Amino acid sequence: MQAKENAISKLIQQLEKLPGIGQKTAQRLAFYIINMKNEDVKALAEAILSAKNSTKLCKICCNFTEDDICHICSDDKRDRSIICVVEEPQDVVALEKVKEYKGLYHVLHGAISPLKGKYPEQLTIDVLLKRLADTNVKEVIIATNPDVDGEATASYLARLIKPMGIKVTRIARGIPVGGDIEYADEVTILKAIEGRKEI
Amino acid sequence: MQAKENAISKLIQQLEKLPGIGQKTAQRLAFYIINMKNEDVKALAEAILSAKNSTKLCKICCNFTEDDICHICSDDKRDRSIICVVEEPQDVVALEKVKEYKGLYHVLHGAISPLKGKYPEQLTIDVLLKRLADTNVKEVIIATNPDVDGEATASYLARLIKPMGIKVTRIARGIPVGGDIEYADEVTILKAIEGRKEI
Ligand SMILES: [Zn+2]
Ligand SMILES: [Zn+2]
Repeated sequence: MQAKENAISKLIQQLEKLPGIGQKTAQRLAFYIINMKNEDVKALAEAILSAKNSTKLCKICCNFTEDDICHICSDDKRDRSIICVVEEPQDVVALEKVKEYKGLYHVLHGAISPLKGKYPEQLTIDVLLKRLADTNVKEVIIATNPDVDGEATASYLARLIKPMGIKVTRIARGIPVGGDIEYADEVTILKAIEGRKEI
Repeated sequence: MQAKENAISKLIQQLEKLPGIGQKTAQRLAFYIINMKNEDVKALAEAILSAKNSTKLCKICCNFTEDDICHICSDDKRDRSIICVVEEPQDVVALEKVKEYKGLYHVLHGAISPLKGKYPEQLTIDVLLKRLADTNVKEVIIATNPDVDGEATASYLARLIKPMGIKVTRIARGIPVGGDIEYADEVTILKAIEGRKEI
């Protein structure tokens, strides 16, 4: 294309930065957006800005929320004696779909991975430890992904939490090894929670 | 998810409306966007609005452009005696990549498809016919997709254009039947142009 500087090319470039969006898909999306109604394009752009601007981290569990405390942490019916630790907010969405787990969560926002430059201090581990010191939590289920980074993170957390006298369990390997919790089906997630073992 | 009304859910809903973006992908993109830097999210939203607002149809060929006349129609080095008719702007992008075709284009913005409620008057066929009446075009290459709608459109156009004393050719079936020109590789497109036949 000659007109590399034009608005369509700029949009294609922006879309290509998104995960899983290659050049062809970016182009297809850009042309689709141009063909959309004005009001729909506006709604899309506004939804992007609004989601970014109004989302912050829950002061308790570090999950995404629009309030200071997320709707799970502020739910009286949840069991406050158990915390399920996950890597990402989308893991909470996946676990909540099962409708079985009634405890709270803690979102690490990643896993320890020295190769990828992710160290413990870049995760929300300090918030978790303070939380465990201040409350009467009896069990921490570590539901990081069953891959190298997730296992390393699980071991690291277990070493820190077990000396606090709290039971630490690891979600069972019902989830395919190397797989993503986010993409697991609901039965698999349920099995994985039921089969959890103390670390 | 309980909080169906929140900004993240709204963004997921907006993203799901885009072609080829399912619920899982929409969710993944939404969480990714929330994790992006503020300035990058702004740039994305602005690129979307700017592409929509600054893009119009070329007054000659109906391709997307930011000016009154697109960069192809206003290029002195193009052969004005030949017009390649395509369904969508992205087909022009695919054909231009081959760097072989030196004529002009005409973008129909769809194909005739009574089943999908697409009739000739909803395409830019009137603009094309007026253009052919006013200029010295010697050949019209019809490069609509080689599927049912594309073939119907090709026949329809041939019936209208041939009586004007203009040669009408159809792009060769080098492109897989049922396939999309947009997704054809460059060699296939080149073969298809070279092997074009008069209708
Ligand atoms: Zn929370
Ligand atoms: Zn033009």
